[in-house]
Amino acid sequence: MTWTKEQRYLPYDHWDALKLLTLQAQADRSSFQLQYHIRPQSGLLNDPNGFSYFAGQYHLFYQAFPFGPVHGLKSWMHVVSKDLVHWQNLGLAIKPGDPIDSHGAYSGSAQEIDGKLFLMYTGNVRDQNWQRIPYQNGAWMDKTGEITKVSQPLFRNPSHISEHFRDPQLLKQNGKYYALLGAQEAQSQTGEIMVYQSTDLVNWEEIGPLNLGPLGYMIECPNLVYVDDRPVLIFCPQGLNKEQASYDNIYPNMYLVLDEVDLAHATVKGAGALQQLDFGFDIYASQAFNRGEDCYLISWAGLPEIAYPTDQENWSGCLSQVKELHLKNGRLVQQPVAAMCKLRQAETKLANEQILQTATDNQYELLLTIPANQTGTLELAKDNSGSLKVKFDTINGLVKLERTQGEFAKEYGLTRSVKTQAKQELKLDIFIDHSLAEIFVNDGEAVLTSRFFNHGTAIAMTSPCKYTASYWPIVK
Amino acid sequence: MTWTKEQRYLPYDHWDALKLLTLQAQADRSSFQLQYHIRPQSGLLNDPNGFSYFAGQYHLFYQAFPFGPVHGLKSWMHVVSKDLVHWQNLGLAIKPGDPIDSHGAYSGSAQEIDGKLFLMYTGNVRDQNWQRIPYQNGAWMDKTGEITKVSQPLFRNPSHISEHFRDPQLLKQNGKYYALLGAQEAQSQTGEIMVYQSTDLVNWEEIGPLNLGPLGYMIECPNLVYVDDRPVLIFCPQGLNKEQASYDNIYPNMYLVLDEVDLAHATVKGAGALQQLDFGFDIYASQAFNRGEDCYLISWAGLPEIAYPTDQENWSGCLSQVKELHLKNGRLVQQPVAAMCKLRQAETKLANEQILQTATDNQYELLLTIPANQTGTLELAKDNSGSLKVKFDTINGLVKLERTQGEFAKEYGLTRSVKTQAKQELKLDIFIDHSLAEIFVNDGEAVLTSRFFNHGTAIAMTSPCKYTASYWPIVK
Repeated sequence: MTWTKEQRYLPYDHWDALKLLTLQAQADRSSFQLQYHIRPQSGLLNDPNGFSYFAGQYHLFYQAFPFGPVHGLKSWMHVVSKDLVHWQNLGLAIKPGDPIDSHGAYSGSAQEIDGKLFLMYTGNVRDQNWQRIPYQNGAWMDKTGEITKVSQPLFRNPSHISEHFRDPQLLKQNGKYYALLGAQEAQSQTGEIMVYQSTDLVNWEEIGPLNLGPLGYMIECPNLVYVDDRPVLIFCPQGLNKEQASYDNIYPNMYLVLDEVDLAHATVKGAGALQQLDFGFDIYASQAFNRGEDCYLISWAGLPEIAYPTDQENWSGCLSQVKELHLKNGRLVQQPVAAMCKLRQAETKLANEQILQTATDNQYELLLTIPANQTGTLELAKDNSGSLKVKFDTINGLVKLERTQGEFAKEYGLTRSVKTQAKQELKLDIFIDHSLAEIFVNDGEAVLTSRFFNHGTAIAMTSPCKYTASYWPIVK
Repeated sequence: MTWTKEQRYLPYDHWDALKLLTLQAQADRSSFQLQYHIRPQSGLLNDPNGFSYFAGQYHLFYQAFPFGPVHGLKSWMHVVSKDLVHWQNLGLAIKPGDPIDSHGAYSGSAQEIDGKLFLMYTGNVRDQNWQRIPYQNGAWMDKTGEITKVSQPLFRNPSHISEHFRDPQLLKQNGKYYALLGAQEAQSQTGEIMVYQSTDLVNWEEIGPLNLGPLGYMIECPNLVYVDDRPVLIFCPQGLNKEQASYDNIYPNMYLVLDEVDLAHATVKGAGALQQLDFGFDIYASQAFNRGEDCYLISWAGLPEIAYPTDQENWSGCLSQVKELHLKNGRLVQQPVAAMCKLRQAETKLANEQILQTATDNQYELLLTIPANQTGTLELAKDNSGSLKVKFDTINGLVKLERTQGEFAKEYGLTRSVKTQAKQELKLDIFIDHSLAEIFVNDGEAVLTSRFFNHGTAIAMTSPCKYTASYWPIVK
């Protein structure tokens, strides 16, 4: 199906319910469908939004277009959890179509303020000449889940910022509210993180861009969080010069570990090297937030402008699992949250078998320990037509993921890799959920998150090697 | 909202998608919503249908009207499971609106035949004078889940049967196919179970009514299953004379344990007493099936013609948990399936405390053992405004459930009770899921299944008594 502009932006009440029920059934029945990750009920899911803790539970929203695998008229869908693993669907939360968000309720964040949750998001509005006006909007959610939009935009892009001005992260610091926004400087067409300030959430004042220097042509989804007491800035610089940092995906999701941030003056100090958040094929638009000293991260396991095989089934996208963040030697360490263990079914212990499982449900955790000074290839979702390959080299210290099946995103290469310590034991904690692989290397010192579209179900080493492993089917 | 006939029977593609998304969100957000039972995504759910095992998993369908809490244009929705506890939604399965089911795809059953699943259901058709024509229809589901209706009805009601002719149960015996149907004899207006026979699923021959004698004015949802090798007939006789069997609900769900059934001659032998399947307020339209020698049962935890409080939230209905059936002393014993234990979270052991829990999520299992020669009252979902009360008397042998909150179904009484052995220890295994209580008495010798609509969350005895108990929060 070719999507016209009219179809993409058709109001939700102009679609018919049978179409939606049919699309939901098609997504439900997909053999590639995620079973223990957050996924769209129908159509497209992309950025996580409004990740927060409020009224006794975690809240998360996500960007959704329920009518097809395209970036059409976006809404916020809502899920809640007590443990960051078992999520309850609460359905449509922010419906687009008002004058402040006529062409989409785009990404944003959430903060508890005076006993309510304040949602701050970008209202995408197109004028009669199809010029985009990026409004930054607010909405209040009370403890019953009732959401009321603030009827007027909080602010829009200043004249020196192009139409690319979005993804507000709302923060409270020293009695003031700050918003960090992804932005493009209009004249230089460079990416920036803009800082705004308010004392009342009504009147907002531009402070200026963070002093990060040029970062591509646009920055999306900025997040400032505190990890083990240090400020960390997570963001997606589009068009980043590969001399500034190496990456293979169409757009990278990067982070900076900082010494200090002074939002009132839009300045950061002591920024370390620009680093990749994830070494796999499919991570973008990550959103993190602090609950007290804890810091949690969730990501879209997908990328803009990539056509995925499930587009043929009229749905697209999923979220990663939630990860807890820590710092180690100036780098982020990402670990599954504690409750992930609860999904484990009966354990199978393995040691050195060449065939680890002949037939899985492609819904499992596999925790491998591989001694130093070996090379090998672990094949996941394997059948006669192929597999998703995890190559490891504990002589030189390398983990390489090889994705050859599925006709998608091949122009960005068939492998992703991450270096590890040479001549050291290697730990791989691998979560498979039908079409998503999340590989935690050495207790989360690196993660490779990737979609894959194989129909095989076996797990095997291509040749004998030494390892010990635990295999758990996952049921949720 | 008052529902006109036109609204009830509006084709699904005449409803708008925003309405459906809004209804789904409203159902998702209900504080009464079930979290570990099958429930409607929106609107109304009633009878379980097509309960079967096929292609490596259990299949279940249910009657659904997605647009409100009324019995409108019904479809079949589909869920699947490997363990009868964790169900995966597959969405809309049989869409009504063809000439053979223009006014609803009503209840029916499923049987594996030649590598496909044959779904047999009642197509509700109304002519221009609003006269009902009850077609009995077929549909084939392949292993990918693709469903193709047989375009012509298999048969309709014979002239001596009124328009009330539905709920076919398809059986294979001695190389022939049989269908048991709920029916009303036109002249006498009495309830019957009609038997039809076919060799090819195309040509069907009426054999006649089972020799059960008069059973009310209509029988719905007949099921013949084999439990511990004995034939058991489970069905819903409407308008049953209370001298034939005692019951309190508007319509009862009853069963007969038989010595022999000869479908070819529509005769049963050795029928025991007519017995109640469940002693609670809300069980109806139960469907059972055999997988080999195992027999599983699931029910609508609701009743026809009762307005439930969630009607105000535009949704209604849920299914019971699946129960495994056995026979003991000529009575059915119903037990949770093995995988229910997997939902248990950390155990709290209790003994004689008057307050068992001060605040639960109303999502738990409570297994109580109460010594002989005591009386007491266990209060569930308790707060200052009331509770759901379980009164027990192990002197005389009685368990009485008292439901006083919620303005619904009060004309059918505020209590339900079941006798137990006098002067014996009593075991109560209680499953609470927000607005559903399932109480297994003495390892399933009796079950009381009831909806309730309290906002309290405590568990307490009204006065001190002796017991031991295990309490497990349930997460799914």
